[in-house]
Amino acid sequence: MVDFTIQLEKIQQAVGILKEKNVDCWLTFVRETAHNSDPALPLISPSNVTWHTALIITSKGDKIAIAGRYEVGNFERMGVWDEVISYDQSIQPALVEVLDRLNPKQIALNYSESDTAADGLSHGMFLTLQRYLAGKPYEFISAEGILSSLRGRKTAGEVARIRAAIDLTDQVIGRIGEVLEPGMGGLQMANFVLGEYEKAGVPPAWDIKYCPTVTVGPDSPVGHLSPTDQYIAKPGDLIHMDQGVILNEYISDIQRVWYLQPKGETTIPEAVQKGFDTVRAAIMAAAAVLKPGVQGWVVDDAARQTVINAGYPEYKHATGHQIGRTVHDGAVLLGPRWERYGNTPYGIVEAGNCYTLELGVPVPGHGFIGLEEDVLVTENGVEWLGNVQTELYVIPA
Amino acid sequence: MVDFTIQLEKIQQAVGILKEKNVDCWLTFVRETAHNSDPALPLISPSNVTWHTALIITSKGDKIAIAGRYEVGNFERMGVWDEVISYDQSIQPALVEVLDRLNPKQIALNYSESDTAADGLSHGMFLTLQRYLAGKPYEFISAEGILSSLRGRKTAGEVARIRAAIDLTDQVIGRIGEVLEPGMGGLQMANFVLGEYEKAGVPPAWDIKYCPTVTVGPDSPVGHLSPTDQYIAKPGDLIHMDQGVILNEYISDIQRVWYLQPKGETTIPEAVQKGFDTVRAAIMAAAAVLKPGVQGWVVDDAARQTVINAGYPEYKHATGHQIGRTVHDGAVLLGPRWERYGNTPYGIVEAGNCYTLELGVPVPGHGFIGLEEDVLVTENGVEWLGNVQTELYVIPA
Repeated sequence: MVDFTIQLEKIQQAVGILKEKNVDCWLTFVRETAHNSDPALPLISPSNVTWHTALIITSKGDKIAIAGRYEVGNFERMGVWDEVISYDQSIQPALVEVLDRLNPKQIALNYSESDTAADGLSHGMFLTLQRYLAGKPYEFISAEGILSSLRGRKTAGEVARIRAAIDLTDQVIGRIGEVLEPGMGGLQMANFVLGEYEKAGVPPAWDIKYCPTVTVGPDSPVGHLSPTDQYIAKPGDLIHMDQGVILNEYISDIQRVWYLQPKGETTIPEAVQKGFDTVRAAIMAAAAVLKPGVQGWVVDDAARQTVINAGYPEYKHATGHQIGRTVHDGAVLLGPRWERYGNTPYGIVEAGNCYTLELGVPVPGHGFIGLEEDVLVTENGVEWLGNVQTELYVIPA
Repeated sequence: MVDFTIQLEKIQQAVGILKEKNVDCWLTFVRETAHNSDPALPLISPSNVTWHTALIITSKGDKIAIAGRYEVGNFERMGVWDEVISYDQSIQPALVEVLDRLNPKQIALNYSESDTAADGLSHGMFLTLQRYLAGKPYEFISAEGILSSLRGRKTAGEVARIRAAIDLTDQVIGRIGEVLEPGMGGLQMANFVLGEYEKAGVPPAWDIKYCPTVTVGPDSPVGHLSPTDQYIAKPGDLIHMDQGVILNEYISDIQRVWYLQPKGETTIPEAVQKGFDTVRAAIMAAAAVLKPGVQGWVVDDAARQTVINAGYPEYKHATGHQIGRTVHDGAVLLGPRWERYGNTPYGIVEAGNCYTLELGVPVPGHGFIGLEEDVLVTENGVEWLGNVQTELYVIPA
């Protein structure tokens, strides 16, 4: 029932990354993770925890888990921890004893102003750690560099799972094209998609209230909003969807666009075609510069300038985010150098990263054209992880 | 599709609690909550958020939401926020402007060493807030007192949802009794329960890897462990399950125990009966002292002493935790004064709190006897929220 394959891969990878980045010790310190999740935990633990739990990995290869009496069994079963230490009343004595023994110079903790996927330590837990280790010589540092690589360098097992989620989504997208027609509302379309997910036994990749996100025609607002039947599709409308699924704990994230072509119309209106071509060109421009060693913002800029140069309004989000266990999988962002993105657009892309490439433009009178493709960064460039939308999907209406 | 009823109730309640506790301003500061959830967020927001989001409520009744461009719509639709402010590149200018205008003495933030349900602010986000507000005169204080009451005092709408989840679980428990028999393994039993949940269209209340938790016979370990078919039920065994569901965003959490009575046995063995009677007596002892105004540890102690006085080993967990949106719903705990529980056992029970009462004892040669009942604290005492197990469920085997 419980499969540890990915966690074993990631724990081994972590030791290598600690060595590479010259950090003595990485501590994941969590409790009641059903409330306060740490995005790092699922990489190295097969389940949530309830009591205070400390997972310690060092650059020398030590792997030590300290957990509450009723939860140590889950760590013992993994077979990868050198020591699994149990406690009843307080984790402090065991934690202090282990750290005294390891005597690290720095302890990397899961906090980061920039990278949400490296910011799982709550402020309360940080205060507890300060109290537990008062007077000790250890220097607390952010684990963001470690987690950026650990989370970002997908293992073979992780890439296979992402591909499977994308493949399933591609199949659903095919079926959407068979049912779309004038008269359908956005909520009705969303419910069709959710019905397909349910048949496949998979949940949506993000909040069911706006996954899928559906934009119908020219008046429907764009964004992470719940679909409504306030906007009903009519001939000449663009239908746009942003969606994904969780399959075997890994996700897909794809945007597609359909055009309801009025009877008698023989060519796609120029404004619609230009919109599609611009979005497609911008995605290809990003893909062309996306490779190991490049900074995230450079990739964003290639796509962004394509859209601006074509005379469209600049989109107000990043061109690409990593995908994996979560839709926004943290670490290096293919985004503009805006304050709210912190240092994530300045990070360096690495082989094994899985990214979305996504953006859109409005076409007045018709609707919104947005595309989102999922790619794997290889040594030389990118590999598309699923189908790619290279032309408008035209539905006679 | 989106129902705000509970959030509207809780936001109104929050203003009253701020007044009562004499705190000027409460700030929930979150981003990318699919990664780093803040347990306070679902109380006041109908969905996760992606960009930095600030939700500000004051004792004067101000309700101000600042959110990213693509997410403000979700707050506008609630109709409860006086102002919904949108931003693109950084939340800082709007946040500083609003706080300058409100000019609070203290700002209560969601961090707590003791209460996990009040500890949603990540350390990275705390650092960001310090940076944004450097040089400002505001005093940061913990919102744990506010959240303890806000989360703990269930509204009528919340209690109705908890009752519905318990009712569904009671029905599943009835069906378990119809299928249990010698020869079944723990995993097989767990899969039966999960099948019943699936038919009802509800997920388990906690990690599916150990919800339900199943203990089969005398050798099966007790705790939050994944069920296995390593232990097969035989006549004379006790079967124990800990389970719950999520229905309409609220949960149930119930333990039950069955006895497989061997052919020809006419009375329940004395050790088994004594175990059951002790557990039941301990739960009744806790229920007898559970009322508004009592400290959590006093309730725990009543049950704990009953078990110890009967000669059983002391259980290593709290006698009761709050239930609501989550299984361990934070705030005041009916637990012993152990370090790892922080100050939560010292808190004061309030009317409207929903608690579990749970504990167990081992019966050598037979298995584990554990019961868990869900109760509502009323002005005068407790009300049982569902069926109560008053005697062993005996299955001829």
